[in-house]
Amino acid sequence: MTEFIPPGSRFIALPPSFSMKRGGSLQGARVAYETWGTRSTAGDNSVLVLTGLSPDAHAASSGDDPAPGWWEAMIGPGRPIDTDRWHVVCVNALGSCKGSTGPASLDPATGAAYRLAFPELSLEDVADAAAHVVRALGIARLASVIGNSMGGMTALSLLARHPGIARSHVNISGAARALPFSIAIRSLQREAIRLDPHWDEGRYDDTRYPESGMRMARKLGVITYRSALEWDGRFGRVRLDSDRRDGEDPFGLEFEVESYLEGHARRFVRRFDPNSYLYLSRSMDWFDIGESCSGDTHRGLAGIQVERALAIGVATDILFPLQQQRQVADGLRAGGAYARFLALESPQGHDAFLVDIARFGPAVAGFLADAG
Amino acid sequence: MTEFIPPGSRFIALPPSFSMKRGGSLQGARVAYETWGTRSTAGDNSVLVLTGLSPDAHAASSGDDPAPGWWEAMIGPGRPIDTDRWHVVCVNALGSCKGSTGPASLDPATGAAYRLAFPELSLEDVADAAAHVVRALGIARLASVIGNSMGGMTALSLLARHPGIARSHVNISGAARALPFSIAIRSLQREAIRLDPHWDEGRYDDTRYPESGMRMARKLGVITYRSALEWDGRFGRVRLDSDRRDGEDPFGLEFEVESYLEGHARRFVRRFDPNSYLYLSRSMDWFDIGESCSGDTHRGLAGIQVERALAIGVATDILFPLQQQRQVADGLRAGGAYARFLALESPQGHDAFLVDIARFGPAVAGFLADAG
Repeated sequence: MTEFIPPGSRFIALPPSFSMKRGGSLQGARVAYETWGTRSTAGDNSVLVLTGLSPDAHAASSGDDPAPGWWEAMIGPGRPIDTDRWHVVCVNALGSCKGSTGPASLDPATGAAYRLAFPELSLEDVADAAAHVVRALGIARLASVIGNSMGGMTALSLLARHPGIARSHVNISGAARALPFSIAIRSLQREAIRLDPHWDEGRYDDTRYPESGMRMARKLGVITYRSALEWDGRFGRVRLDSDRRDGEDPFGLEFEVESYLEGHARRFVRRFDPNSYLYLSRSMDWFDIGESCSGDTHRGLAGIQVERALAIGVATDILFPLQQQRQVADGLRAGGAYARFLALESPQGHDAFLVDIARFGPAVAGFLADAG
Repeated sequence: MTEFIPPGSRFIALPPSFSMKRGGSLQGARVAYETWGTRSTAGDNSVLVLTGLSPDAHAASSGDDPAPGWWEAMIGPGRPIDTDRWHVVCVNALGSCKGSTGPASLDPATGAAYRLAFPELSLEDVADAAAHVVRALGIARLASVIGNSMGGMTALSLLARHPGIARSHVNISGAARALPFSIAIRSLQREAIRLDPHWDEGRYDDTRYPESGMRMARKLGVITYRSALEWDGRFGRVRLDSDRRDGEDPFGLEFEVESYLEGHARRFVRRFDPNSYLYLSRSMDWFDIGESCSGDTHRGLAGIQVERALAIGVATDILFPLQQQRQVADGLRAGGAYARFLALESPQGHDAFLVDIARFGPAVAGFLADAG
């Protein structure tokens, strides 16, 4: 079972026994991270970036790894998250397969991969692991924590469970809890993986691998990450050239949009561990910042202490709809933060923060500039 | 291979050799239909109802079949499509498995089910078959043709290919062509069925049946037929009681919304022929009223001759979004129709016409009342 660790990764060991929220613990676990920029003498310029489900910690290129990162246009000298000013830390989520301990990692108790013996993972665990990294790096207080998508959920958990860990927060296309539409989508993605006979209750290997299930899950992901509006302009009803079609298969790929999905899926299926996908996906369904307040999301958010906050959303996002970012801003404001909600006009849906840098860049840069 | 024919069905034979748009022909094919109400002496009160992908011709209860139909609240004495005034005809789509000839029907040339030997099906064929029923019933001109979802596409094809067949048209949550988002969804549904080893290139039977693939396809369908907004209010984050959960399965059903999808899927998978599903699904992807005008949808619509038209859409529909019904009204108006576009506030998404009778009923009834 392969893990996919970016070459510039560094690692921080979690405490020898790291307790998980829903029970069980991890022995000798670690978190992968990367950094950019330099800590200020006052130690007050660190910005933590928390990711969505699939990215690794390689958010941007660096001396250790010159390959472009997944948020390359946002992080670097003179970029919106300006590394001439900010010391940026990105962590790979606990439970992932990109360097942090997860279901594909070796269980020291058995010497074999955890697979489904990995304890139940919650985003609270992911947040606690990130908080450990912050402390281990000697950061007394973050200037800001920025969370995208799942990372937006993780960031709220981090702020709630570790009061004072950050002065400010940017929540990008995130949410304070999972809602039934996105739960349904993720449930179906997990079902696709589990239905693949090669998944075999998590006991696949590289030769017997749940490739079809992962392909279905990824395609459904990509469909819900983008927007119908963007695709109308981008693909319309354009057909594939006949030499790119399988003339033998009456239900084979015919439209450009089908080929686009197929390409995305092929690039993903062997680059992400299926069990890790299941664990992280389920952790998002479970997330509810109001859990300890009888499901009162607003009260859960209002319990968070942060000075300033910005929640950014996109009208074309069907997975984390705009009202969820509005809810985050409203709730944090009720808790005393100077909190703003910003709706961007990006046509790209949930994934807009990855591609619409023209809109997201100034919004994030402007917020950080005010961070003093 | 089972067909699922409502007991009140009647049948009309298509011409001995029925030519298909994309090539090939059907020998001895038939179309199932039901009727309600009485033909007027002038023969000018017939209303044709064209359905979405999965419904049969049993749109409402009748003396021959008292079971409630799929549009029971809309069709009947005193109902919005008032059978005291209108003679209503609903046809089962050619290619379906509910009485009309389709891939599950016996091929007279072989005595065995067509399966994938069924010729390529287009919505133009479905429209031609419906036109044949209208003529065979002796209806010189329909008062109106009402099409829902796929039926809205079929109705546009019917009007374009059979000029003068109807005085008016109601297009409900329909479209003049398939767009890439819905193509992507349907492509994924077909892939789920085709990936099921029991599909076996269409050679399944009742004991080896692509149940998992059909379940996935149906769940994805239901997710896209409804809306996130409706589900937030209906399911929220409510969990299943522990006695409805499989404690052994770490990724089993946990949330009410998952159980709802599972229930919908279970009721569907053995009640619709998988090959028929593939054929009808693909026919929707292919549909483009502008096909003969170099893909110019507006010009394709403007070529349709109809006196009055109403295109109804719902803002929460992600599969046939509102702008597609607006486009239908604009195009028909350019062709000389008195055409109106009506956006309803239904929270139920694409399926609203099936459930939000409070909004759809008056809209359809009002239009028909003006039909003179």
